[in-house]
Amino acid sequence: MMSECSFGHVVILGIGLIGGSLARALREHDAVSQITGVARSRETLDLALQLGVIDKAETDPVLAMKDADLVIIATPVSTIGPLLELIAPHIPAHCVVTDAGSVKGSVISAARSALAEKIDCFVPGHPIAGTENSGVAASFAELFIDHRVILTPLPENSAEDVHLIQTMWEVCGARVVRMSPEDHDAMLGATSHLPHLLAYSLVDFLSQQERHDDIFANTAGGFRDFTRIAASSPVMWRDICLANREELIPLLSSMEQQLAVYRDYLEKSDGEQLEQAFRRAKVARDKLPEVTKVGNDE
Amino acid sequence: MMSECSFGHVVILGIGLIGGSLARALREHDAVSQITGVARSRETLDLALQLGVIDKAETDPVLAMKDADLVIIATPVSTIGPLLELIAPHIPAHCVVTDAGSVKGSVISAARSALAEKIDCFVPGHPIAGTENSGVAASFAELFIDHRVILTPLPENSAEDVHLIQTMWEVCGARVVRMSPEDHDAMLGATSHLPHLLAYSLVDFLSQQERHDDIFANTAGGFRDFTRIAASSPVMWRDICLANREELIPLLSSMEQQLAVYRDYLEKSDGEQLEQAFRRAKVARDKLPEVTKVGNDE
Repeated sequence: MMSECSFGHVVILGIGLIGGSLARALREHDAVSQITGVARSRETLDLALQLGVIDKAETDPVLAMKDADLVIIATPVSTIGPLLELIAPHIPAHCVVTDAGSVKGSVISAARSALAEKIDCFVPGHPIAGTENSGVAASFAELFIDHRVILTPLPENSAEDVHLIQTMWEVCGARVVRMSPEDHDAMLGATSHLPHLLAYSLVDFLSQQERHDDIFANTAGGFRDFTRIAASSPVMWRDICLANREELIPLLSSMEQQLAVYRDYLEKSDGEQLEQAFRRAKVARDKLPEVTKVGNDE
Repeated sequence: MMSECSFGHVVILGIGLIGGSLARALREHDAVSQITGVARSRETLDLALQLGVIDKAETDPVLAMKDADLVIIATPVSTIGPLLELIAPHIPAHCVVTDAGSVKGSVISAARSALAEKIDCFVPGHPIAGTENSGVAASFAELFIDHRVILTPLPENSAEDVHLIQTMWEVCGARVVRMSPEDHDAMLGATSHLPHLLAYSLVDFLSQQERHDDIFANTAGGFRDFTRIAASSPVMWRDICLANREELIPLLSSMEQQLAVYRDYLEKSDGEQLEQAFRRAKVARDKLPEVTKVGNDE
């Protein structure tokens, strides 16, 4: 891990769990000269100032661009395009911009249309870290330690700019990998977005049952773990699911078919097929790499 | 919690996670004069003896019945009926029998046919406790502390016998509730069996994808939590799902429909409906009672 490096004046758009934790981590490693936080809510900014997460607060992203060396957009995916459009004419020369959006394909399309010939300054990224809590009050400097960050560099990016963003995340303790936006969206669709849809859908379904109070009173640890991701922010996940709908629509179709296959085994009392299916799943689950820290994949 | 009581000569059929933990807990509270463990495998019995979980080992359930005061059947649900049939002629007078099966309706049917006029000695029960690990080596005395045990007493049971089984679980630290077998199977179907089917089904589906190694390499804590229950015993869960198939078939149908509704929202890019659905789920999830110990609901 690097110890002596500075990213200069860092501007973070969106001071929530991710933006706040990044600010804390960069400061803890003395890797910035100044951090300006941008949020729409004055309350969030006051809290961020009070917690010492940022040095300067700004509600106008355009004003915050002045003298920015590095800009990180850590807002819900649906807002990244509009924000880039707003700041595009005001991004200083040599300033590098990145994001933390959970979907890359649709963010890159929006970025291309917003930035036009300035697209080379935008290095798309996604830290695979989070908790079911949101907001700056939930942020902490250690959030990214040993977590993966996926960068999906564009052909237009310079090697230096991609290296800068990689270094920034490594300073925060993350392990950086690079892949294509298409691969990113397919992987995350399967391992993060689809499980969130399943968890939401199970709890949503049970909450609509007549005896839902009895049902929820009769749960234990397994159910808590299984549904923990259904306590995540509805707005953030609405945006992620819409942004990755091209991947998610066929994935949901496949899951419907998979459940119909299991239902068929039950209808035929086919214990052999059912056991084989469970065994395939257990073998795959048992091979999952151990993670050192607990956190959501978002 | 009780401190001074003895259940005499306790026979436990099936010395796995549940049977082993029950033996350890009863011994820790000086609540037995002797524990005989019964298992098909000599290896399991030797390990149980070596770990001090049982006093006496027996491979033949019939031989173990001699002088038994209390019999607990802690084997997979599909084996409870055949075991009851085997021991039926040998159950001593005044001996009370209970089980730890995760499904009650089908176990009670099997018990009625196996025990006939002796059915009054059988008090059906289900400890809502477990981990994804199985076997006597994974057992521990604290497994049941603050966990619920559901008893589904039969009209033929005497109040004294039901009280005895309730006291046994309370001695182990559990909170005992009573309900009808139908309510038990509906509740557990929704909050335990269905989530297990969903977790198995997601991991099974992903493991059949072309790039499954890449997919599983790209997971984080949220996916681990969500799929932890897919690491449970395939044989045990095959049996549970088959035994509760009458509940699970319509539940799976409903989940297929629920996923189709979410897919429809995505196809129409209907963010408002999607957010409302996620919000309903989050509200329900946030209201879940806190649990003090982590454990599966099985």
